[in-house]
Amino acid sequence: MPFTLVIHGGAGNITPAIMDSELERQYTQGLKDALDKGYDVLKGSGTALDAVVAAISVLEDNPLFNAGRGSVFTKKGINEMDAAIMDGSNLAAGAVAGVRHIKNPIALAREIMEHSGHVFLSGSGAAEFALNRGMEMTPDEYFFNQSRYDQWVEIRDTNFTQLDHKGDNLKGAVLPNPGHKFGTVGAVACDMMGNIAGGTSTGGMTNKRFGRIGDSPVIGSGTYANNATCAISCTGHGEYFLRAVVAHDISCLMEYRGLSLSDACNVVIKDKLVKMGGEGGLIAVDANNNFDFCFNSAGMYRGMRNSEGKELVAFYGA
Amino acid sequence: MPFTLVIHGGAGNITPAIMDSELERQYTQGLKDALDKGYDVLKGSGTALDAVVAAISVLEDNPLFNAGRGSVFTKKGINEMDAAIMDGSNLAAGAVAGVRHIKNPIALAREIMEHSGHVFLSGSGAAEFALNRGMEMTPDEYFFNQSRYDQWVEIRDTNFTQLDHKGDNLKGAVLPNPGHKFGTVGAVACDMMGNIAGGTSTGGMTNKRFGRIGDSPVIGSGTYANNATCAISCTGHGEYFLRAVVAHDISCLMEYRGLSLSDACNVVIKDKLVKMGGEGGLIAVDANNNFDFCFNSAGMYRGMRNSEGKELVAFYGA
Repeated sequence: MPFTLVIHGGAGNITPAIMDSELERQYTQGLKDALDKGYDVLKGSGTALDAVVAAISVLEDNPLFNAGRGSVFTKKGINEMDAAIMDGSNLAAGAVAGVRHIKNPIALAREIMEHSGHVFLSGSGAAEFALNRGMEMTPDEYFFNQSRYDQWVEIRDTNFTQLDHKGDNLKGAVLPNPGHKFGTVGAVACDMMGNIAGGTSTGGMTNKRFGRIGDSPVIGSGTYANNATCAISCTGHGEYFLRAVVAHDISCLMEYRGLSLSDACNVVIKDKLVKMGGEGGLIAVDANNNFDFCFNSAGMYRGMRNSEGKELVAFYGA
Repeated sequence: MPFTLVIHGGAGNITPAIMDSELERQYTQGLKDALDKGYDVLKGSGTALDAVVAAISVLEDNPLFNAGRGSVFTKKGINEMDAAIMDGSNLAAGAVAGVRHIKNPIALAREIMEHSGHVFLSGSGAAEFALNRGMEMTPDEYFFNQSRYDQWVEIRDTNFTQLDHKGDNLKGAVLPNPGHKFGTVGAVACDMMGNIAGGTSTGGMTNKRFGRIGDSPVIGSGTYANNATCAISCTGHGEYFLRAVVAHDISCLMEYRGLSLSDACNVVIKDKLVKMGGEGGLIAVDANNNFDFCFNSAGMYRGMRNSEGKELVAFYGA
């Protein structure tokens, strides 16, 4: 039986100009590690849900990516993370926003889905739930990363917030370090049983404040999965993805208009979102193992591996 | 030019058996007060957005309704509120989750939409933003309400959470006070310019914990507005509304399938949501001043008033 895994490590102004061969090697390895872990789950008849958690956990543990261990710093110099997961076989969902000290927020999102009686938990309350469930907690030091810290120090006394996916900010001024392109991470999978699932995890924006929540943990916007249509994980300027309800819009274009997975992704990312001014991208899979990478930014860290032996890792636009 | 205002004060197990003539009089007056305030805005050529904020603020200030002043108590004995607003003319949106001490959360949602550069803020960070913007803050005492407090005391030592809309809870056991039916509040409006807007505000579930966020503040699930389709405000068992992305699903059925407002509402609330096991309802309006009340529960506190002189306040099922 066929299966497919697709992952991303953030979209944005990712061009050869901001990379070098060592960085390319590191990102390639990071993406491959995640693909291999999720692939092994699917190959061993594991569920799409298990593969999504496995792949995202690898990306969360890798300081290269803005999620889990590599999360950026908020205005207050701490790491607050968001994550969501959805099971396309039964529309079960779990999400967490603004949580600290959680080693793998995607695992917490799944725990919320399966054991909280709720869908969406937040802040210190979500951490309390994680403690109750015996989840792995880590001290602030675990999340410390010199380059993320330096990135924050440069803008902490401003009111600027740096998007994970491009070198500018919400106030319109150019930041000192346009070379720093960090990203949300995500995975979508179709397993041997034909079930699909999707998940997303992020540290949000550097210097974010006011308990800002982006699209990543919002079911329908940054994350969605439904066996009847598609599983989606988004990355980009979250505010636009929230307003456009991106992930669910793609699902509806497939369900109600009969569009193919890739046509639906193109309509939303390359037409509707562009008209709104929203930059970013997504990964998608359907229950027939069709998959898509779609982004309107210069590039997106991305990869896929499937049962047909196809494997791909890429950064830049086509 | 025609205009329309529709409001709700929560759906659920609302039947003549749990009401008496004095309660009916109070709810009728509370809904009428909100309708009148919003109607005056629209009649004076105000925007749908202004009318939605005006009507919801009246409901938030009324201790009868579970929002603002009348918010229920969390597991820790405090009041944490959620709200969202969306402008159908430009898809601008603002939302807030888990905020304390804010007199009118719907006004904060609008302030977030217009002045934060973000869509979704949460917790103490959101309160900090409100302070920065000079919004009206109130002490805990303002939110104290004996009947809400008693309701909480009865279940605070359990792990039960009481939904705002029915007398049971997420663990399946029956609560001592099935007669307490409290609700989320919401408003949708179409103004003389043909623009529509929607908003929702809630205190959530009694004895909620872990920073639980329901559908109310989630754009696409509890709240949505788009001039091309509809403005929606939901009330009910939030977890199901989140998983079903209810408000945006109705919009997509109109946009992609060409369904009428009321047909789209019926498909989602009376078919799809029922099959998932989700109880609740919504109010809806489109840019042609069509409006709808739709619920799969026994009743919904609701009302409407429009430029044709039509006015309605009702509680129970048809």
